[in-house]
Amino acid sequence: MSKAYHQLEQRFARMSAIGGAIAVLGWDHATMMPPGGAAARANQLSTLSVLRHEIMTAPEMPDLLAAANEDTAALNDWQAANLNEMHHAWTHASAVPADLVEQMSMAESKCEMAWREARANNDFAKLAPLLNDLIGLVRQSGEARSEALGLSVYDALIDQFDPGGRQSQIDPLFAELQAFLPDMLQEITARQNDAPPAITPTGPFPVAEQEKLAHKVMSLLGFDFSHGRLDTSHHPFSGGVPEDSRITTRYDEADFTSGLMAVIHETGHSAYERGLPKDWLHQPVGRARGMTMHESQSLLFEMQAARSPEFVNFVSSLIKQTFANAGNACEPDNLLRIYHHVSPGLIRVDADEVTYPLHIILRYRLEQDLIGGALKVTDLPDAWHAGMKDLLGIAPDTDADGCMQDIHWPSGAFGYFPSYTLGALAAAQIFAAAKTDDAAIVPGIAKGDFAPLNGWLRQNIHGAASRFSTGHIIEQATGKPLSVDAFKAHLEARYLSG
Amino acid sequence: MSKAYHQLEQRFARMSAIGGAIAVLGWDHATMMPPGGAAARANQLSTLSVLRHEIMTAPEMPDLLAAANEDTAALNDWQAANLNEMHHAWTHASAVPADLVEQMSMAESKCEMAWREARANNDFAKLAPLLNDLIGLVRQSGEARSEALGLSVYDALIDQFDPGGRQSQIDPLFAELQAFLPDMLQEITARQNDAPPAITPTGPFPVAEQEKLAHKVMSLLGFDFSHGRLDTSHHPFSGGVPEDSRITTRYDEADFTSGLMAVIHETGHSAYERGLPKDWLHQPVGRARGMTMHESQSLLFEMQAARSPEFVNFVSSLIKQTFANAGNACEPDNLLRIYHHVSPGLIRVDADEVTYPLHIILRYRLEQDLIGGALKVTDLPDAWHAGMKDLLGIAPDTDADGCMQDIHWPSGAFGYFPSYTLGALAAAQIFAAAKTDDAAIVPGIAKGDFAPLNGWLRQNIHGAASRFSTGHIIEQATGKPLSVDAFKAHLEARYLSG
Repeated sequence: MSKAYHQLEQRFARMSAIGGAIAVLGWDHATMMPPGGAAARANQLSTLSVLRHEIMTAPEMPDLLAAANEDTAALNDWQAANLNEMHHAWTHASAVPADLVEQMSMAESKCEMAWREARANNDFAKLAPLLNDLIGLVRQSGEARSEALGLSVYDALIDQFDPGGRQSQIDPLFAELQAFLPDMLQEITARQNDAPPAITPTGPFPVAEQEKLAHKVMSLLGFDFSHGRLDTSHHPFSGGVPEDSRITTRYDEADFTSGLMAVIHETGHSAYERGLPKDWLHQPVGRARGMTMHESQSLLFEMQAARSPEFVNFVSSLIKQTFANAGNACEPDNLLRIYHHVSPGLIRVDADEVTYPLHIILRYRLEQDLIGGALKVTDLPDAWHAGMKDLLGIAPDTDADGCMQDIHWPSGAFGYFPSYTLGALAAAQIFAAAKTDDAAIVPGIAKGDFAPLNGWLRQNIHGAASRFSTGHIIEQATGKPLSVDAFKAHLEARYLSG
Repeated sequence: MSKAYHQLEQRFARMSAIGGAIAVLGWDHATMMPPGGAAARANQLSTLSVLRHEIMTAPEMPDLLAAANEDTAALNDWQAANLNEMHHAWTHASAVPADLVEQMSMAESKCEMAWREARANNDFAKLAPLLNDLIGLVRQSGEARSEALGLSVYDALIDQFDPGGRQSQIDPLFAELQAFLPDMLQEITARQNDAPPAITPTGPFPVAEQEKLAHKVMSLLGFDFSHGRLDTSHHPFSGGVPEDSRITTRYDEADFTSGLMAVIHETGHSAYERGLPKDWLHQPVGRARGMTMHESQSLLFEMQAARSPEFVNFVSSLIKQTFANAGNACEPDNLLRIYHHVSPGLIRVDADEVTYPLHIILRYRLEQDLIGGALKVTDLPDAWHAGMKDLLGIAPDTDADGCMQDIHWPSGAFGYFPSYTLGALAAAQIFAAAKTDDAAIVPGIAKGDFAPLNGWLRQNIHGAASRFSTGHIIEQATGKPLSVDAFKAHLEARYLSG
């Protein structure tokens, strides 16, 4: 190992420790912090971000990277891959001039604040000018990254969240989804309209009991509470660091079903982080591969494993043990009706797995046009309305339930949305391969034992971290490139068979 | 304001933000973190500490400080005091060579770990060599600071925790305490033996109810829950940042009395932090003055205000509202007997306010001898034994209850102990002055209204932050230099009058 490479490892370990501190402070912000702590916290977080950025863009970095690159013969495969990841991270960070980084950070926080108010008051006109300014800066940042990476502007934006993600790969996948999903949706809803409706569970389901159930389910799913916690926050998320995984959910005393699934979803994210190789935790190569892979792991737990008849059957008995008032609504058949209910809706985060990709395709189209300039911000509400009609057959009465429903754009995240649906495709393909590879996985899930599944995922997905590209890891694990086939087969089996 | 001074402010603001992050991560470590997160957390904390130290000891700092010092005419009083504080902080940080800082940090964490085990097993021989090594390093650090500050080695150590604290000031105060406390102790215990013994409250007192009571009392004391939280930890502490005050306590279901007083004590610390001047929060001059002043504020709340007959009478009714099973034990007279009980004991943290200074005097003597070399570590248990006999008339059967009871020395904190007793003296003197100044303070306390007291403290103590020395602030606020008079008068009035 060259001296230059060794120095780079030390610098990246330092950045990783700062990143860990940022992650824990972010978790605290969402779960524990009193409101009066916000300004001090923002100051702590921005100081740590700037410090990390300064380490990344230190003047000697190009020379260190070049020197390490000249002596790759001395590196083993992981080290060589690590050097690639270092170079990639540095290219992104150094591409954008410091003053643009600062302008963006200010515009993002202004726009996000305006968004909260504008959404609450359904007042898109208030948001539009700030969003327009922000998009201008995001475009500049995309152009700078584009030049440094040799990618199109939109690809360069995607690449921040999902390294290696490209429009040329996404377009055909999304086209294929769009080709069959609307018809399939009609067919599924027709079938569901003919079947008996689900009985809604009647609460109250006390939060303390829901928490107990969540802890139990998490343990069964392999969550290690000596290396993590479950808390509550406004929106469920998975945070912290691999050694100390902080996941959150929210509870509704009237209905336990969605809080429970949120816990399972976040436990899937956490399993990925916990399964990263211990020796590389503090280096770029040891990090999760990207948002597509991350979302594939949460959706694999939630949509593939936990909504399977086998697991729903198992969890039904846990639910009945937990809630004395569970009643018939918590029998396996009815729980399946609840968890397999499909219906076009206005809100992405509430969408079922059949309609979800259509929400994403809409955003994918619109954000390209916003960044490219083909769509003016002031025209966004109309474009949203038309897109919803076209893709889902319904349209919102308000912008609050339309183009202002998501935080992503007001917080500057353009190029992020596709990973949700790529993750859903990957989840289906990976779960299918896992079940074929190891016959113990489904019987395990049927009795609440995720150890076989977790073992397979650790071996084939988690342990690879960022050693290879997303595409390579999926192809190695499943024997074929990412496609819509497994997802389509999964939907057909779950919603149209029998 | 000179450009150099302005640059210094920016650098110190950055260090303050890092310090804030460290404080919140430290709080999380003690309250929320699962055990498996320890290694990652240690790494985050040490990385942030090193970053802060690097900013402080950056090569350009001496020139910046010198340039700012040449242009003090342009500074207002606060800025000038801030520059002094910057210089003082820099002198401490730059005095100790980086390799010694690192050696100490390693020796401290080794020694602290060994201490936990050695104390649990009452095995001083296991701790002794590590403590000896650590003391050697602390001595070196003291010598380096001594040279940089022009102070004796022990004064240089005190000065880390309590800037301006000097042995020449402490010696006569402690001599005076030692001259009257043992006799007074005998007199008090004789009186208490003649009086009816306190009835012990009979629990259980559920934790949830104790928490509710704690929240209520904190609110009455002025704690603002939009800028802070109460949680539980192994040892009570006050952490976080001034804008986001995180205090902790511990609950014993069999006895609520000590957990409640711990909350009040920590609320006093928090009130000080919350009362620091808003405009200077992120600069050295805006920080709490030192450990003596900090302890004076917690003890003023706990020992002076909250254990007063007026407040005990008031809190008795709250307690009876909270616990249906409170019974006669929670009548004001009996609560006063509990909260005014005096008895020589082996353990400092359990000591009453009469015997506490004797515990401190013992440690003060012994740590000087350990640092100076007059006392060998292997002779510490015997010296402890003899000192306890001499000062308190009792001695421990085990080193666990003797020289291994405190974490301070095994964690490298030499020169810290005196501030506990200096704080007790200051608390008595400040409270006496406050009561004289504002006749509304005691009637306020009698009805659970701390607003008059808090207003006076903010005006006379908290708002001064580090603008002046501890001695100056006390003299301004009370009209005289710190002495034992008020403390002695307080003990006489509480324990020997009537």
